[in-house]
Amino acid sequence: MDEFSLIKRYFEQPSHSAVQGNDALLLGIGDDCAVLRIPAAKDLVFSIDTLVEGVHFPVEASAADIAWRLLGSAVSDLAAMGAEPNSFTLALTLPGMAPQWLEEFSLNLVTAAAKYQLTLAGGDTTKGPLALSVQVNGFVNQGAALLRSGAVEGDIVCVTGSLGDSKAGLGLLAKPPENQQQAYLLERYYRPLPRISSGLLINTFASACIDVSDGLIADLSHLLKRSGVSAKIDAQSIPLSQALLQEAGENALQWALTGGEDFELCFTLSAENWAALKLQHHDVALTAIGVITAGDESKIFQNNQWQPMVAKGYLHFSE
Amino acid sequence: MDEFSLIKRYFEQPSHSAVQGNDALLLGIGDDCAVLRIPAAKDLVFSIDTLVEGVHFPVEASAADIAWRLLGSAVSDLAAMGAEPNSFTLALTLPGMAPQWLEEFSLNLVTAAAKYQLTLAGGDTTKGPLALSVQVNGFVNQGAALLRSGAVEGDIVCVTGSLGDSKAGLGLLAKPPENQQQAYLLERYYRPLPRISSGLLINTFASACIDVSDGLIADLSHLLKRSGVSAKIDAQSIPLSQALLQEAGENALQWALTGGEDFELCFTLSAENWAALKLQHHDVALTAIGVITAGDESKIFQNNQWQPMVAKGYLHFSE
Repeated sequence: MDEFSLIKRYFEQPSHSAVQGNDALLLGIGDDCAVLRIPAAKDLVFSIDTLVEGVHFPVEASAADIAWRLLGSAVSDLAAMGAEPNSFTLALTLPGMAPQWLEEFSLNLVTAAAKYQLTLAGGDTTKGPLALSVQVNGFVNQGAALLRSGAVEGDIVCVTGSLGDSKAGLGLLAKPPENQQQAYLLERYYRPLPRISSGLLINTFASACIDVSDGLIADLSHLLKRSGVSAKIDAQSIPLSQALLQEAGENALQWALTGGEDFELCFTLSAENWAALKLQHHDVALTAIGVITAGDESKIFQNNQWQPMVAKGYLHFSE
Repeated sequence: MDEFSLIKRYFEQPSHSAVQGNDALLLGIGDDCAVLRIPAAKDLVFSIDTLVEGVHFPVEASAADIAWRLLGSAVSDLAAMGAEPNSFTLALTLPGMAPQWLEEFSLNLVTAAAKYQLTLAGGDTTKGPLALSVQVNGFVNQGAALLRSGAVEGDIVCVTGSLGDSKAGLGLLAKPPENQQQAYLLERYYRPLPRISSGLLINTFASACIDVSDGLIADLSHLLKRSGVSAKIDAQSIPLSQALLQEAGENALQWALTGGEDFELCFTLSAENWAALKLQHHDVALTAIGVITAGDESKIFQNNQWQPMVAKGYLHFSE
């Protein structure tokens, strides 16, 4: 089977029902480009992400887990903009044909895409070391993209869900999970849940937002820098899961502060909006962890004292 | 230098002047997503392409050549849709930091982007075997994307420029060029010229279009299949460069028919429109090479007889 048949077989199946339900996507796979008509009064938001075997997932990762992790992490960028997902393209680099791998991958990709309301709009399949790039397209009301740059002094700093789980999962990849907690943490690593509906709702209330991909402190620092403000964070408020506490012991807080790839949202908003948001938001826990301050010296209250908040995220080229 | 500083240093330079001149791009690099406002009455067209070291370019390729080849081949998909280029994202996977490589690459990428009127809108930098994915965004008037599917019986089949040069260039990669012809063919391989302005003009006249990336017969076959028609092609009409004839000898025609990555446009149009187009088009040679016929048995007149036209393009997974 050649490249074209391969792509056709797995990604142009009529069962790929998401294609039919997308009014904006005028043309999908099969031409030189896909064609998208942005709905009236909407802006397009888009982002590209790459996962490389041995870097972003272990060689042993299943095709299913790779598919979920790939789309979950990519869609998280749409969530952070308060955007509604629409479509994506996939650049797939594979060492060889591997029909079984591709079947498992494509089945899970299609399932994940349907869950996130994303239509596969196009792609490229090439031969090479296993790597996958995804570009996601989403829509926001014109001028309403939720940026990193809007935080102001006095805003509350909040996060969705719990942090550090993915880092704990990363440490458990080598062997099968021994208990429910470990299974949960592995799931959090392999199948991050992008906070799409939270992002859509948060967009109405928040002044700034970022998704936690490099680690809370690193990502919050990006947000602060873009906004030209600083923050005071209370380490004791950081939401930690029971599974993390059980698995990480005394490392739990450190992992929550610096472990990457939780794909939760970190956002800022006025006290008034925080009260209003909490009344409407029921998807996942929201936790206030600090406040925005003026200047550029961010601090974190930890071990009974205020310490400088230093960004140490996941840096691909610093190793 | 960490990942963020690296990206910042090379791609957020104020000298990257293209960013300023793009009215549609409301937000570029530096947030979770880029934000694009599609101009009134326009559709967005987009396509993703990957180049892998050792597959799409030799290990010895210079960072400059890789940058030009990357953007040239990606933009060619916009040309084939008759679209006007707007912006692109870059997913860059690098084995290591290599500041010199990155400097040469980014400088040439910015230069190529300016030439093709593309703004770098976002990206992702990861560690891994050298590979580059680019997604290009372009605009067409609403409903006016030039597809592969519009060819009808009686249309003339045409191509831009000359074919087979890139294949000849591929055979010359091992050593420095010995003469002007070889230098020309290498240039055609490393720095394909996407037919943007031709595509924009052709869009007004053509019924269908595709860019020649897999080889003329393979790509024409895609167009024919999507249009539900066949073609009769005259092999003697295929445009061949002097350099190709000199370098390839008796292989010249075969390379023109099946060699990939020329990134010329192959398009169809009525005889009336063909006459009108020729009067207006002065960018590069246009050559009529055959006609569209009914049915599904395409033929090519070669060696003084009609033969079945069999697609044998570049197939990544058939080796």
